Amino acid sequence: VDAVMLAKAQAKLDKKTKPLGSLGRLEEFARRFVAITGDLQPDTAKKIVFTFAGDHGVVEEGVSAFPKEVTPQMVFNFLRGGAGVNVLARHTGAEVRVVDVGVDFDFEPTPGLIIDKVAKGTRNFAKGPAMSREEAIAAIEVGIGLANRAKAEGVAMLGTGEMGIGNTTPSSAIIAAISGKTVKEVTHRGTGINDAALSHKIRVIEQGLAVNKPDPRDPLDVLAKVGGLEIAAIAGLVLGAAANRQPVVIDGFISTAGALIASELNPHVKEYIFAAHESVEIGHRFMLDRIGAEPILDLKLRLGEGTGAALAMGLIEAGVKILKEMATFEEAGVAEGEY
Amino acid sequence: VDAVMLAKAQAKLDKKTKPLGSLGRLEEFARRFVAITGDLQPDTAKKIVFTFAGDHGVVEEGVSAFPKEVTPQMVFNFLRGGAGVNVLARHTGAEVRVVDVGVDFDFEPTPGLIIDKVAKGTRNFAKGPAMSREEAIAAIEVGIGLANRAKAEGVAMLGTGEMGIGNTTPSSAIIAAISGKTVKEVTHRGTGINDAALSHKIRVIEQGLAVNKPDPRDPLDVLAKVGGLEIAAIAGLVLGAAANRQPVVIDGFISTAGALIASELNPHVKEYIFAAHESVEIGHRFMLDRIGAEPILDLKLRLGEGTGAALAMGLIEAGVKILKEMATFEEAGVAEGEY
Repeated sequence: VDAVMLAKAQAKLDKKTKPLGSLGRLEEFARRFVAITGDLQPDTAKKIVFTFAGDHGVVEEGVSAFPKEVTPQMVFNFLRGGAGVNVLARHTGAEVRVVDVGVDFDFEPTPGLIIDKVAKGTRNFAKGPAMSREEAIAAIEVGIGLANRAKAEGVAMLGTGEMGIGNTTPSSAIIAAISGKTVKEVTHRGTGINDAALSHKIRVIEQGLAVNKPDPRDPLDVLAKVGGLEIAAIAGLVLGAAANRQPVVIDGFISTAGALIASELNPHVKEYIFAAHESVEIGHRFMLDRIGAEPILDLKLRLGEGTGAALAMGLIEAGVKILKEMATFEEAGVAEGEY
Repeated sequence: VDAVMLAKAQAKLDKKTKPLGSLGRLEEFARRFVAITGDLQPDTAKKIVFTFAGDHGVVEEGVSAFPKEVTPQMVFNFLRGGAGVNVLARHTGAEVRVVDVGVDFDFEPTPGLIIDKVAKGTRNFAKGPAMSREEAIAAIEVGIGLANRAKAEGVAMLGTGEMGIGNTTPSSAIIAAISGKTVKEVTHRGTGINDAALSHKIRVIEQGLAVNKPDPRDPLDVLAKVGGLEIAAIAGLVLGAAANRQPVVIDGFISTAGALIASELNPHVKEYIFAAHESVEIGHRFMLDRIGAEPILDLKLRLGEGTGAALAMGLIEAGVKILKEMATFEEAGVAEGEY
């Protein structure tokens, strides 16, 4: 991003009626938003959370507390506006766009649903690759295409989210593959499995890594062999947003796995990423450090869908409004402090 | 608060289309809001941040980076809508009410300004008591009166804020008096003073405590001798909100000193308090622990005014909307998980 714009934004913030730097991270959000967009008076009105849905063959190994049928059931819940992400996006004035990039269900064309299906779910990565390299690229291209369409529509800020029963399992597999950490160090309870199920989940991921041998220096290889279609689409949305100079707010654990793939493919994208929140899932911190992102919220969320992204967008927008709407010392006739 | 209502709220949350507990602190906010108000479908629309303004005689000791004249100047900035709290309250849909409880300036009656002046600032506590006990009580009653008026108007949630050049100094004095910690352990840079000024500020507070000998078992004595008029009014607002079963969101360091006085006077008020954010000021953590409140945000804010309270209100409201607006598993036809 543009260092001159960063400095210009901070200079403008420093004239506002407040002690220097006293609005902390709100000032950081404003500064980065300006540097990303190249606009000292950036618009924030139009915000979209993309909730990518996909299924996972590895669910047949019993890694999740929920049956696979919940993925399409939740897609219908999103379309009716009844899910957590709908409630929180309405609250912060964001639109939710639901994208079927890989659900194992044939949806009828429905308003609000983008059907861009690459496959009817991934294959079971405990037994072989989850996707072909071509499928992984196609799913990335779905995300890039949506970012481009959003840019053309004048959207100010993009958010990521996902729905896919079992998708903490490929996320942990991606982290283990890229970090070289043990599976145990980066695998947690997902939606709420017990100790025995957690041990089983760890063994399934270990098996998947042993069977597929993903190459950590080749992020596409990791994504294809042990990732997911919605994770690939998130990586694509991040790549597209960065190419278009748009801020992109990544949700929790699974979205961060997608953003990690994007930033391994092209480290420049890191500058366009806002991390919505600290996830309860272990392994999240490694990814955030690798991406260089400091989470905005810590509300112990572990739902996904884009819920954290929807909330964080509201706080980023608040920071931009500080830049745009606050009076300066001169305008307000307020004496400046002596530091 | 009502334990039965807490349980009822959680039972309602547990039927929503999400893994149990997966919305973390948003669920806590909803649960507590229900228990405080006694309403399973609580309204959150009407929110007010009260920004209490007062001056401090101790400023003549040179404890602040800003001159005392900034207090009335900032009051005019609030009334014109140009200050940080105005921007953030507009963003989250809260109203700002500015209260002159102790500014050393004669305001003309102005729309949006509540003139409830107890004195034209406190006296210099480095040389004697900041207030008489009667003045401290009168300022507390200002806050109680405003909480009662808000209750009558059907306000759903109250927030605290303040403006008073020099007011981190009495706040640190209050903490030192109540905690028994050294002044150095609970005194920080306020709006941004340098090392030499910080050492001086610490000496001034030490002198004030030595001169006044506030009794830690008598919170009113501490408040009157080394506190402030706006801090007293905040204590009153917290007491009034709790008595009226209304949630009250306390802002940062100075507001928390007010809430600490309230909770030392009546420990029951703790259950009605939401702590908006982790302040950069040292000493804040002691107060939060004593009140038993876990801050909602950590955005490195140190402006005051009610800026953090305005933002946190938006997140608390988000939690209540989860309770009210999310679909249940039954409504959405979604299969529940097996835990």
